[in-house]
Amino acid sequence: MFDMQNSWHPVESACGNLPTALSSRNVNMNNTIAAIATAPGEAGIAIVRVSGSESLAIADAIFRCSGIRPSLRPQNTFVHGYIQSPGKCAKTDGGVDEGILLIYKAPHSYTREDVIEIQGHGGATSARRILRAVLDAGAQMATPGEFTRRAFLSGRIDLLQAEAVMDLIRARSDRAATAAIEQLEGSLSNCFTNIYDTLITVAGDLEATLDFGEDELPAATMQTLKTQLGTVTCNLTALLKTWDEGHLLREGAIVVISGHPNVGKSTLLNALLGSDRAIVTHQPGTTRDTLEEQLVLNGIPLRIVDTAGLRDADCRIEQEGIRRAHSQISLADINIWVVDGSDVLSQSERDHIAACNPEHCIVVMNKADLGSQLSDADFIGLSTVSCSLRDGIGVDLLRKTIVDILGITTTAPGHATLSERHRIIVQEALNELNETLSLLGTNADAFAVVAAGMVRNSLDLLGEITGRIYHKELLDTIFNRFCVGK
Amino acid sequence: MFDMQNSWHPVESACGNLPTALSSRNVNMNNTIAAIATAPGEAGIAIVRVSGSESLAIADAIFRCSGIRPSLRPQNTFVHGYIQSPGKCAKTDGGVDEGILLIYKAPHSYTREDVIEIQGHGGATSARRILRAVLDAGAQMATPGEFTRRAFLSGRIDLLQAEAVMDLIRARSDRAATAAIEQLEGSLSNCFTNIYDTLITVAGDLEATLDFGEDELPAATMQTLKTQLGTVTCNLTALLKTWDEGHLLREGAIVVISGHPNVGKSTLLNALLGSDRAIVTHQPGTTRDTLEEQLVLNGIPLRIVDTAGLRDADCRIEQEGIRRAHSQISLADINIWVVDGSDVLSQSERDHIAACNPEHCIVVMNKADLGSQLSDADFIGLSTVSCSLRDGIGVDLLRKTIVDILGITTTAPGHATLSERHRIIVQEALNELNETLSLLGTNADAFAVVAAGMVRNSLDLLGEITGRIYHKELLDTIFNRFCVGK
Repeated sequence: MFDMQNSWHPVESACGNLPTALSSRNVNMNNTIAAIATAPGEAGIAIVRVSGSESLAIADAIFRCSGIRPSLRPQNTFVHGYIQSPGKCAKTDGGVDEGILLIYKAPHSYTREDVIEIQGHGGATSARRILRAVLDAGAQMATPGEFTRRAFLSGRIDLLQAEAVMDLIRARSDRAATAAIEQLEGSLSNCFTNIYDTLITVAGDLEATLDFGEDELPAATMQTLKTQLGTVTCNLTALLKTWDEGHLLREGAIVVISGHPNVGKSTLLNALLGSDRAIVTHQPGTTRDTLEEQLVLNGIPLRIVDTAGLRDADCRIEQEGIRRAHSQISLADINIWVVDGSDVLSQSERDHIAACNPEHCIVVMNKADLGSQLSDADFIGLSTVSCSLRDGIGVDLLRKTIVDILGITTTAPGHATLSERHRIIVQEALNELNETLSLLGTNADAFAVVAAGMVRNSLDLLGEITGRIYHKELLDTIFNRFCVGK
Repeated sequence: MFDMQNSWHPVESACGNLPTALSSRNVNMNNTIAAIATAPGEAGIAIVRVSGSESLAIADAIFRCSGIRPSLRPQNTFVHGYIQSPGKCAKTDGGVDEGILLIYKAPHSYTREDVIEIQGHGGATSARRILRAVLDAGAQMATPGEFTRRAFLSGRIDLLQAEAVMDLIRARSDRAATAAIEQLEGSLSNCFTNIYDTLITVAGDLEATLDFGEDELPAATMQTLKTQLGTVTCNLTALLKTWDEGHLLREGAIVVISGHPNVGKSTLLNALLGSDRAIVTHQPGTTRDTLEEQLVLNGIPLRIVDTAGLRDADCRIEQEGIRRAHSQISLADINIWVVDGSDVLSQSERDHIAACNPEHCIVVMNKADLGSQLSDADFIGLSTVSCSLRDGIGVDLLRKTIVDILGITTTAPGHATLSERHRIIVQEALNELNETLSLLGTNADAFAVVAAGMVRNSLDLLGEITGRIYHKELLDTIFNRFCVGK
């Protein structure tokens, strides 16, 4: 299978003269990082990724292949061969794996450094063995997100794009993935770059007005400035509104099913899951009485929580279940309150319904097939759906109502959305700019200096979104939530 | 980030003229297969692998990159770009992912067909989206092991190597992985090829003797044949002995800790795990009373099972626990029976010890620090270790005893070992050949025809090991235990 003649064979070098690059590998070696880049588990392929100035020397040290040694091969090529521990002779020590070596040369790589990727066999052991060989050859273990951090620091991507990488990996629905890939391709970066550039102009012009005497400033200039600032605040406000959707796409909407015992809560859970069973995952709850299931509805990931029936209970375990049910309801994006529509409401049901937030509540009147004692009039201000869950009647309308309440348009293509980090920064910048506008509206001449300072503050804030301005803590916060190997 | 000028852009073709290869993609398309080749889960990278005559046309249909289109690029190169659904316009429909496309051209690939691999972002959604785009472009979902099956059918690897691929992916210890990679590199194939070739010669020579008259056959010829057959049976017997080790490396050894309550069973579990905690995984048992942990001891994966204390119990749950403990003991490769060495044995302990299989049992006399009421004389024929587990005394000796009983040499480098499938075939072939030798020993001339037939039978059997001889059912059995994507 492997031609021993005319081939690159690290052992020969390791046993005799080291290649030049390898022998000096202790220089700057703290710059070369490595990690397993694929998920653990039984699979065909696993990848170990290595980035840094010593990557190619490491490839020479551990990869045996036909023809010329890895470091002399052209960029963007790959070669089949065998991985072995550095300095070991293949004849006496077993090889590590058979695989493919990918060669990226700086700056044409994810990190803009020299990068090698070693594709070996999947499974629990193989990737770990390859990683060990790479570390033995001098690489250091990468920290979470360190490859993407280097991609950012090298200027290949901005912070918004770096964050999109992790959003994409974490995406739990098609729509979330589409939003992330658009952000990765730069849609959100372009929005913020435009805003930033406008604001830079505003700041410059505002500072220029300071050179004018009190009555010399042309009124038109100030008006232009205010118009530009107004546009920026409008755009920021519009972006802020995308946070709701971004939050739902990233975290998933929590839908809590609650109600008295025996009104059909679990039947409702099953009915909702039924049509999408193929993409449902089953997560046994940490308690016996709260069951959580996941499904995707119109591209929105939902976490559906079935809770214990609410009633006055003597049993301590049941009391605990009810306490947890109330706790889940308080966290819900949507609370589906199920009642038996063929019966009258109890006082405690009436109390609960009176306390519901109409923006987040749907009342399901179940058992419509048994006759109806209730109507919409019993739930004024609340969304209601009449169902016969046993027969699957009303479930489609319920799905539509859930999507309507979540307020995500279902026909538009995905678009970039703000994350929590962006929301906080945009809100702060918006506050500064609204204040600026207010000052300029009152007495532009008197407040021009203060206003200019506030616009500069906004620029500093917004700079942190794309990473024009960054500090170590900001990067730590962002990249620590990454997985190792990305 | 992406140069729209001078770049290959599938949408332009899909919206206008289709590339030639793509437009004819329905021809032989049932030959092009695709699957996700990396494990599911949060990770940096996921790979979709495509093999078959339409692979390059599919690449053209879904991959947008700078410069020339994928199918025109040289083999063993890769290119950065964007994946999109076939026939969709990137401006109105979101892209699928950003990634790398690897191009293998027949016969320089795993399957010896045209192969493309698309590296996208890891996680639950991204790889699925890429796979969907590839399927939409005309590929068919691969069955388990179909890529490796094609590698076998194309003659790139034999069946032993194909099986080694899955052994490597499933390997749970370094030693198991080393054994698998050696088998993949052909060590076991060489053994069987040598045996097969010798046997072919024997069969030919034996058949040639049939042309001689009864007294014409030179005695030396028959002696040579018998010597050769003897060597083959010796080699097969030696190979058969590797099954034990292979079985342990593949499946892991089951070590069951049992004994009466309060003799120190759980302390023993902790003591064994303690020094290797880093590579221990915690698996909560399916029952409350049986706990299973994994560790690797001298390269051998162990499944250590802690069982309920054995005693006469009234409680039904405890009875069930004890029933399960007995069931575990019957499955064990090693049963560690723990007794309180500072106390005398109870009758039921004596009964249990008398029933132990000495080849699979180790008696741990715990609580040596509290004085000793017991000695080796109480356990004649059994391996015993005196311990004070609370202080970690005796644990190293216990580890050594476990390794000794498992009978795997700890210094030799890993070597290829027989699987259960091979064992059955080798045993059958060996039976045939021993019978042949016996017949030739009795009356070589009279039985030469029968003997020649039996050697041919052995060849047919042994041919199924490397796959010189195969049938659909054999391949189905082997490849159905593979994962999809390999």
